[in-house]
Amino acid sequence: MTVKLHGLVAATHTPFDAAGALNLRVVEKQAKHLLATGVRTAFIGGSTGESHSLAIDERLQLAQRWADVANGSDLRVVVHVGSNCLADARTLAAQAERLGAVAIAALAPSYFKPKTLDALVACCAEVAGAAPGVPFYFYDIPVLTGVQFPMPDFLAVAADRIPTLAGIKFTNADLMAYQKCLRAQDGRFDIPWGVDEYLLAALALGSAGGVGSSYNFAAPVYHRLIAAFASGDVATARAEQFRSVQLIDLLAGYGYMGAAKAVMGFLGVEVGPARLPNTNLTIEQTRSLRASLEELGFFHWVQRQS
Amino acid sequence: MTVKLHGLVAATHTPFDAAGALNLRVVEKQAKHLLATGVRTAFIGGSTGESHSLAIDERLQLAQRWADVANGSDLRVVVHVGSNCLADARTLAAQAERLGAVAIAALAPSYFKPKTLDALVACCAEVAGAAPGVPFYFYDIPVLTGVQFPMPDFLAVAADRIPTLAGIKFTNADLMAYQKCLRAQDGRFDIPWGVDEYLLAALALGSAGGVGSSYNFAAPVYHRLIAAFASGDVATARAEQFRSVQLIDLLAGYGYMGAAKAVMGFLGVEVGPARLPNTNLTIEQTRSLRASLEELGFFHWVQRQS
Amino acid sequence: MTVKLHGLVAATHTPFDAAGALNLRVVEKQAKHLLATGVRTAFIGGSTGESHSLAIDERLQLAQRWADVANGSDLRVVVHVGSNCLADARTLAAQAERLGAVAIAALAPSYFKPKTLDALVACCAEVAGAAPGVPFYFYDIPVLTGVQFPMPDFLAVAADRIPTLAGIKFTNADLMAYQKCLRAQDGRFDIPWGVDEYLLAALALGSAGGVGSSYNFAAPVYHRLIAAFASGDVATARAEQFRSVQLIDLLAGYGYMGAAKAVMGFLGVEVGPARLPNTNLTIEQTRSLRASLEELGFFHWVQRQS
Amino acid sequence: MTVKLHGLVAATHTPFDAAGALNLRVVEKQAKHLLATGVRTAFIGGSTGESHSLAIDERLQLAQRWADVANGSDLRVVVHVGSNCLADARTLAAQAERLGAVAIAALAPSYFKPKTLDALVACCAEVAGAAPGVPFYFYDIPVLTGVQFPMPDFLAVAADRIPTLAGIKFTNADLMAYQKCLRAQDGRFDIPWGVDEYLLAALALGSAGGVGSSYNFAAPVYHRLIAAFASGDVATARAEQFRSVQLIDLLAGYGYMGAAKAVMGFLGVEVGPARLPNTNLTIEQTRSLRASLEELGFFHWVQRQS
Repeated sequence: MTVKLHGLVAATHTPFDAAGALNLRVVEKQAKHLLATGVRTAFIGGSTGESHSLAIDERLQLAQRWADVANGSDLRVVVHVGSNCLADARTLAAQAERLGAVAIAALAPSYFKPKTLDALVACCAEVAGAAPGVPFYFYDIPVLTGVQFPMPDFLAVAADRIPTLAGIKFTNADLMAYQKCLRAQDGRFDIPWGVDEYLLAALALGSAGGVGSSYNFAAPVYHRLIAAFASGDVATARAEQFRSVQLIDLLAGYGYMGAAKAVMGFLGVEVGPARLPNTNLTIEQTRSLRASLEELGFFHWVQRQS
Repeated sequence: MTVKLHGLVAATHTPFDAAGALNLRVVEKQAKHLLATGVRTAFIGGSTGESHSLAIDERLQLAQRWADVANGSDLRVVVHVGSNCLADARTLAAQAERLGAVAIAALAPSYFKPKTLDALVACCAEVAGAAPGVPFYFYDIPVLTGVQFPMPDFLAVAADRIPTLAGIKFTNADLMAYQKCLRAQDGRFDIPWGVDEYLLAALALGSAGGVGSSYNFAAPVYHRLIAAFASGDVATARAEQFRSVQLIDLLAGYGYMGAAKAVMGFLGVEVGPARLPNTNLTIEQTRSLRASLEELGFFHWVQRQS
Repeated sequence: MTVKLHGLVAATHTPFDAAGALNLRVVEKQAKHLLATGVRTAFIGGSTGESHSLAIDERLQLAQRWADVANGSDLRVVVHVGSNCLADARTLAAQAERLGAVAIAALAPSYFKPKTLDALVACCAEVAGAAPGVPFYFYDIPVLTGVQFPMPDFLAVAADRIPTLAGIKFTNADLMAYQKCLRAQDGRFDIPWGVDEYLLAALALGSAGGVGSSYNFAAPVYHRLIAAFASGDVATARAEQFRSVQLIDLLAGYGYMGAAKAVMGFLGVEVGPARLPNTNLTIEQTRSLRASLEELGFFHWVQRQS
Repeated sequence: MTVKLHGLVAATHTPFDAAGALNLRVVEKQAKHLLATGVRTAFIGGSTGESHSLAIDERLQLAQRWADVANGSDLRVVVHVGSNCLADARTLAAQAERLGAVAIAALAPSYFKPKTLDALVACCAEVAGAAPGVPFYFYDIPVLTGVQFPMPDFLAVAADRIPTLAGIKFTNADLMAYQKCLRAQDGRFDIPWGVDEYLLAALALGSAGGVGSSYNFAAPVYHRLIAAFASGDVATARAEQFRSVQLIDLLAGYGYMGAAKAVMGFLGVEVGPARLPNTNLTIEQTRSLRASLEELGFFHWVQRQS
């Protein structure tokens, strides 16, 4: 039951058609694109996957589809099952186990926020308990959930109460806590990093990999970054990281989610628009984004040979 | 299609059995209790109703049950349909229309937060559009959603884009904005107040009613408050308001949601425990809460004749 | 040593000349204007007085000047002495005692924030101890200081440790805490309200007065509000409160501090510009503000006979 | 007029005697200790120096003393001159120029917060203008000031309006913005890093140095960290960084400021207690802290040869 989310894990988009309906035919293209760009693990139905904007049935269909597509390929699937409704999270977790997901992850309920670390761990235990054979990752993303507990403390408390606890998807700028988590209990937890725009910082501190949305469309940049850092070529690693910064900065100016989905389309993977409350680019903005990406050199950056 | 949520509107609890399953048999008791304490409007499936902890099917069943129970009685039903998933919200809105709800309400998506007022209005319009014959209330509760826009601006923008816009359930301490909303467009919107512990403040500023959770178990206190204020007896109004403060303060010390559901049980309306991430009282705490309520005089306060 | 800050207390501006230097000659005009508009207590060197933008010597001169001007008149002076530097606060407190201030007030240090209620009370005790014969008010304004402790708890802890504790200047929207403070220890504390734009709400809950900046230039509006509420004429009280809302809303649109100082100039009390980081109106904005005030009817509202 | 704050810059404590009075005799010891541990730049009167708890005269004396002590030595002095009162900040800046400080720095006013980036730049320009011959650093520390503007934008706007702009003391976890600042205008700004507990992350991204409080008492740890990283020995760099994490974590548990000052005492540099609102350790806590530091190996870590 051991798993490590090392290297690049893409937090995949959920594909919709132009009318906003689930468009599962695109999943196969997404999977191919990931494999073609050297990404071998797909994290599905997370924040990038707009899970909170999906109905439970849609989430179940999405996971089924990814499992079908990944079946027999080199692609591993991690299913995000977190929900404000823990009953829904359990349903998703149980399905993930049946589908053979290599791991599940869940973020904290965020409308009602757990008032204590114990309450948060209780929520996680309830979810993880529905998939007793699948490694469980807590997905810490306080900037979106507003739920803030020290993650080293979380590991200390949860280790005893969640037998399947594998680690934390750490989407949190606190690199002090990150170091403590990496070394907790002799380093037995897997703590994939969740802030793409300074992956290099996490690598320097000992990270073995990251889960993020920009690995969907810019994995070659990050592969070069990782390789350069591993070989001691920090200057190249920095230069690649700065490409990532420029890219993410550009997308953020258009509304990150809608812009990132547009970029997927530019690469031939038509994941469609985002759902409200996320917004989409106008036709003019889409054109302008594409021009800016070209100017930046993005389309060269992400060619496999570059 | 006009409605006014004047007087007291109880934001009802969702009843669960001891195992946490939906326990719809209790709805009838809840309805009777409300009518017996002079409350004629039930707001269902809102924050107090733990909507975010409910599966969509549970929310549909809950609304159906309240409609059945209210049918032929004096009780009006307002259905909260808000959800992070707007498709779910639309499903709930359409059902509410079929069921004859007097109004629907929806809070803002809060995991992904609308980044602009326009995006928020777009979300509301999408939801309201699924129930074109039912008055729509936006439910503003920034302390839980983290979504903060000036409500006078919301009314100005939404008035043109949501034909069914009836007003705002205003659970927001900003009494300056409240005054502006009460007077917007010659006072045509209904702005029920959502902070029970200073309803008197809102009344002084012109409020015509409130939606809140403590009207489930302490309506007589508030009826006396309202009557006293209307008759110019401010001292009595203040004294009743301070009872409400003491009561809410006491419950908050135990975790408000679990404690409030326990109080319903003390009154013979067994709405059961809260779901995680809300927590419940231990047996000892329950005993201690009851003793404190007795000491306070609560059980006398809420007798109908008192 | 008893004092009550009942009725209207004006949180006065600090007068500067066009170059931003202290311009103490205006103090006499300010005092006359207050008395002429029925305000008999001046709160000096507070937030409205831009205390954080003043050097300690300027604060000492300002207090001296107000004491001189008030001497022999009907005007009472309350000196705000709070500072991030408690040594400075003690210097100011000791001076205030020598000058015969009817009370002192101090807000919390806010760069370094007291981490516990005990630390906050220790800060207040240190300041109050420098003026052992002068009633002490804690000035709670969390929106500016970021220091948030429950004020009922503050009273409970501070009552034993600050012999001169008189109450709290309550610039905090939490009207539940406000009610508890009003009734703490049999109502022995004086809790002037600090949010002018809903003074009526506080009056309804039992407030006996307010400290605020708009009492500098719109006292007649609030006098009518208070009188109307006292006589049971809630409709008039609301109408006057809504005038205050419109006025404050208008000023806020220009940057409140600079706009409020401009309004004083319109009334013939040339308190001059605000200091950075507060900003001032351009000439064009000043003209536009004046026109808007005329349109609103402001200059009629604040005539004494109106 | 060029300066670069490369390598380690210690944000020094302000020394007090047991009664809390300024104790300038200790400055010489502080300077010697820094030089002995390889730190050649002292940043004085900043957050670690409790500037907000100092009277203006104390700040002037402190700067004078450091200038006298540094005179003729290898030590460079950077004076923090920021203040809520810009007049005070200008006084300090002018003195710093007379004293020959290699640079000045100023944080944002934080009681009144600049509402726009332009207002912030105006504040900085006013301060920097009082020392036209001294390089100016903006000191960005939003976690304490609550003032949050994108630092890349700050550089863009301020470059034209502050001729002496040298860079930013970057005490802000946003490593994306950090990368952009490092590369702004062809890398012409100096952006010393301000979060000691992940200096290694900043180094990986291109940082050339840091300003921090733990460089007062643990410089050898960081020197080894920097040297190891420069030589490609990332494992050692990480291990040293984790020592820093353990150290800072330990101190934070006792209240960082008081604990850090106690540690200085353990090293023979008696900087005395912290002033309120910061708190100090009890005798028992001091003993316990020392024991924990011994257990950790701290006293070995900071020996020069280790």
